[in-house]
Amino acid sequence: MPDPSFSLRTPDDDSLPRKVCDTCGFVAYENPKIVVGSVVRHQGGVLLCRRAIEPRAGFWTIPAGYLELNETPEEGARREAREEANAVLAIDRLLAVYSVPRISQVQLIYRATLAEPTFSAGPESLDVSVFGWDEIPWDDLAFPSVHWALNHERQAAGGAAPVPFANPEGATGNMMPDGRRLSPREM
Amino acid sequence: MPDPSFSLRTPDDDSLPRKVCDTCGFVAYENPKIVVGSVVRHQGGVLLCRRAIEPRAGFWTIPAGYLELNETPEEGARREAREEANAVLAIDRLLAVYSVPRISQVQLIYRATLAEPTFSAGPESLDVSVFGWDEIPWDDLAFPSVHWALNHERQAAGGAAPVPFANPEGATGNMMPDGRRLSPREM
Repeated sequence: MPDPSFSLRTPDDDSLPRKVCDTCGFVAYENPKIVVGSVVRHQGGVLLCRRAIEPRAGFWTIPAGYLELNETPEEGARREAREEANAVLAIDRLLAVYSVPRISQVQLIYRATLAEPTFSAGPESLDVSVFGWDEIPWDDLAFPSVHWALNHERQAAGGAAPVPFANPEGATGNMMPDGRRLSPREM
Repeated sequence: MPDPSFSLRTPDDDSLPRKVCDTCGFVAYENPKIVVGSVVRHQGGVLLCRRAIEPRAGFWTIPAGYLELNETPEEGARREAREEANAVLAIDRLLAVYSVPRISQVQLIYRATLAEPTFSAGPESLDVSVFGWDEIPWDDLAFPSVHWALNHERQAAGGAAPVPFANPEGATGNMMPDGRRLSPREM
């Protein structure tokens, strides 16, 4: 079998160049991807997962991942928490809609609680733990949007602002809050 | 060139079956698609486009379409209004997040106004017009989510409920409000 080989060409009925297979003419339409996730509150803290897989293995994140076909976003957010943290969620409401246009990602982040008081590391996590606000490992969070979501959760819990939040002013998701730029393979 | 031919197989590093090309082994990952659109208010009415293309050619819709790579949702919503209605939008805020899981679609619908007071039919529209609430062609709307968005806009404008809205209780986007089921090719 030959390796897949694609060239950028504009199909007849289209207005933008798409990846067209040189072998069979298949048009690989690429679309932005939807990430669904949750800030999960439990006993005054928030549940975080330490990533076992790249990108950003070893860093802490909220349970989140790609929405699958035929799922609603809420179903996807619950599935990700089951897979990554063996946790059963009760979804409260939408906390934030973030976009990271460099990697063509839209994130729908929900507020949630644990419907059952148990959790443990799934195959994609090294560890799962509940942190009080002052215990959160801020320097070891995996992605800018994890910072955003945790801070937005705190504002929402305090009733300080209407949900949902969007990207912080001017932020496009390429940079951690300490100013360090993420390389494409870290995103 | 042979026609594209795909079989459903589960790649080694994956947990779900994907479409794999029989000729070259390319894995065509399919993800849910993001639709971005706007309820555009102008002079006490809302702007609607009569569709020139399938699905649902001849029916009325809000300006909306697929988010492209590297766009933010707000940029995509503005682009769709430019393309379909030659309209320049000022986005207000997120009105609703709908999902239509049967066709793996997530819709982000914004509240907007016209930043410039002109509009006209683009190539994908037969007509573009501003309708007062009582003039809206309810029986000739293109999709269930157009009904939802117009009704949610009215509730939001009246201050009756916090945005964003989600699918009406129990609605999955397969059925028009009058009970008529949409066939897959109408969605």
